[in-house]
Amino acid sequence: MELYLIRHGIAEERQPGIKDEQRSLTKEGRQKTEKVAQRIKKLGLQFDLILTSPLVRARQTAEILIAAGLSSQLEESLHLAPDRQIYSWLAEWLEPKNYSQNTQLALVGHEPPLSNWAEILLWGEVKASLVLKKAGMIGIKLPETGSVLGRSQMFWLTPPKYLL
Amino acid sequence: MELYLIRHGIAEERQPGIKDEQRSLTKEGRQKTEKVAQRIKKLGLQFDLILTSPLVRARQTAEILIAAGLSSQLEESLHLAPDRQIYSWLAEWLEPKNYSQNTQLALVGHEPPLSNWAEILLWGEVKASLVLKKAGMIGIKLPETGSVLGRSQMFWLTPPKYLL
Repeated sequence: MELYLIRHGIAEERQPGIKDEQRSLTKEGRQKTEKVAQRIKKLGLQFDLILTSPLVRARQTAEILIAAGLSSQLEESLHLAPDRQIYSWLAEWLEPKNYSQNTQLALVGHEPPLSNWAEILLWGEVKASLVLKKAGMIGIKLPETGSVLGRSQMFWLTPPKYLL
Repeated sequence: MELYLIRHGIAEERQPGIKDEQRSLTKEGRQKTEKVAQRIKKLGLQFDLILTSPLVRARQTAEILIAAGLSSQLEESLHLAPDRQIYSWLAEWLEPKNYSQNTQLALVGHEPPLSNWAEILLWGEVKASLVLKKAGMIGIKLPETGSVLGRSQMFWLTPPKYLL
């Protein structure tokens, strides 16, 4: 099973009068995310399911991935909000009995949780050693059996600029 | 300072009569490596120096990078041979006084040393959690001050298929 962690695109700055969860992608953020989506579609990626944080900037990013044909399934989950821990979703989503071996699951969310989660999957702990840019992505292969914590492998980490 | 770890392209299989260090890139290995080199040149990469393992398959890979215009400086070093440790070159090459802050250094070598070295720079220890394919690359940003061990950050890890 492969897990793709995708950070939302460039969004409006924080400002009085706009709730954090309501911040939208900027025009540039939307365009760059669309280009990334088209490029990874061209590279042959296809997700069985895209799960997204319910925050507007993540939701909009996920919708761009759907519009590019990267998946036909989109679900929102509070587990992907910025303040959540990996342990809130790990058991549910990565339980082998819930997915076939070759499932490709995409999670659209925020920093630092996404790169922290990647480190927990790879090394079992957080060291803040991975740089995940907006509209960038991480690809992780989960082990076929046993715990995924500290036993998964990373095969891809890219900033959007290398996908444009 | 940025460090790019680049694995040699697809080489001839091990066989009686050919020494391991003499194995050459196959035709496919050469072509794929040329495409990768052209793509990363197009992405704007430029190395101040390419250091390569003296083994033929690594040397040929480095020469393809040079031919694509990615650097004008190429040096061979036994430190990059398959049986070497990071500690044999770290002090010499990553010593801040030897390089300006914005140096981009490429090391062409072998697995598993390259991904092991990346893990030591990122987390201080080896967990075999990074998948570095032939003709794939890793991009690491070193801290501006202090030890690089366990304190560097990875911003790029890519298999060649996402660069073709």
